[in-house]
Amino acid sequence: MGNKAAIPDIVIGRLPIYLRALNRMIQENREYTSSHELGERLGISSAQIRKDLSHFGEFGKQGTGYNVRYLYEQLRQILKVDREWLMAVVGIGDLGRAIAHYRGFQARGFRVAALFDADPAKVGERIGELTVLPMSQLVEEITRQNIRIAMIAVPASEAQSVADKLVEAGVQALLNYAPITITVPPGVRVQYIDPAAHLQHMTYYLTP
Amino acid sequence: MGNKAAIPDIVIGRLPIYLRALNRMIQENREYTSSHELGERLGISSAQIRKDLSHFGEFGKQGTGYNVRYLYEQLRQILKVDREWLMAVVGIGDLGRAIAHYRGFQARGFRVAALFDADPAKVGERIGELTVLPMSQLVEEITRQNIRIAMIAVPASEAQSVADKLVEAGVQALLNYAPITITVPPGVRVQYIDPAAHLQHMTYYLTP
Repeated sequence: MGNKAAIPDIVIGRLPIYLRALNRMIQENREYTSSHELGERLGISSAQIRKDLSHFGEFGKQGTGYNVRYLYEQLRQILKVDREWLMAVVGIGDLGRAIAHYRGFQARGFRVAALFDADPAKVGERIGELTVLPMSQLVEEITRQNIRIAMIAVPASEAQSVADKLVEAGVQALLNYAPITITVPPGVRVQYIDPAAHLQHMTYYLTP
Repeated sequence: MGNKAAIPDIVIGRLPIYLRALNRMIQENREYTSSHELGERLGISSAQIRKDLSHFGEFGKQGTGYNVRYLYEQLRQILKVDREWLMAVVGIGDLGRAIAHYRGFQARGFRVAALFDADPAKVGERIGELTVLPMSQLVEEITRQNIRIAMIAVPASEAQSVADKLVEAGVQALLNYAPITITVPPGVRVQYIDPAAHLQHMTYYLTP
């Protein structure tokens, strides 16, 4: 293992993409792959992939390349998703509901374990195996289940105060779906899901 | 305006984030801002922001900084979202439904104008002002409305064939929600929404 402090965050951000591609290869019953093939699939140069992986050790063999299953398991360990992380979802609108129903998290290391909404009309509603809880129970429930990750699916105007409350409850990683940048104390991580920003990135290149 | 070919894609990718912050400032009735303040809000260095914006011209004044509304309008023009882009959504599961209902696109330059699903049970369903159409009508409807952007919300196993069909219909920008990398011909853009990848990026830093 390399020195954690020395690995650029942008490298860490690419590991889940490699993991996704390797998982696909496992489904295709592929035994070996190469940085060249991974690069082709992902639109990343093979040199970049080799450089990224070299931060963490020596995974490939000259000639045979990478053992797909081994590299997959190593990356799962490095990203700490060789276990199950519990997550809370705050905001049970259309989006929060879609997140709560989404079946793709479990295979990748995550399980939605608590749902919260400020609207009394939604509190008590059953979604899958969970019941929507009121915001007043957020801190207690997150503490009780030792939840470290939360997804924010509330309107932009509420996102900062919800983030504050989640951090107070001990959450250390926030995935924010509200179209607003939120402020968190040092040590807390935030990532953003902002489809409109991705779309605007692409329209730059389009000829109307 | 700078030379388009010379502007790195990573710079283009940050413009929507600046636009989002400026929009927020407009809502807060802010008249002027600075690269320092923008940087503070976004966790990006002020030098980076000045350098990014300098690709496109001279937006700020020494001393007064940036006029929020002016910079906002300039970035909207640069990203070509000072107009309305029509979008198709393919796959009307929980996620496709949430996308179809999402009210945040319109203010940022986009409108969902067509919905498609392969499931006969979903075809004909009304969602807002739209009716879910069968895949057999995809090419015709996208051509008729001159839709250039599509969101893919189908299972991973279907994503590539749906992408192929959309490209055949003339779509030039794909926002892919399926957890798989898709291949498109040159000239077609793809962006990915993969919440699990963002979560895995954060778990690297968490202490279990």
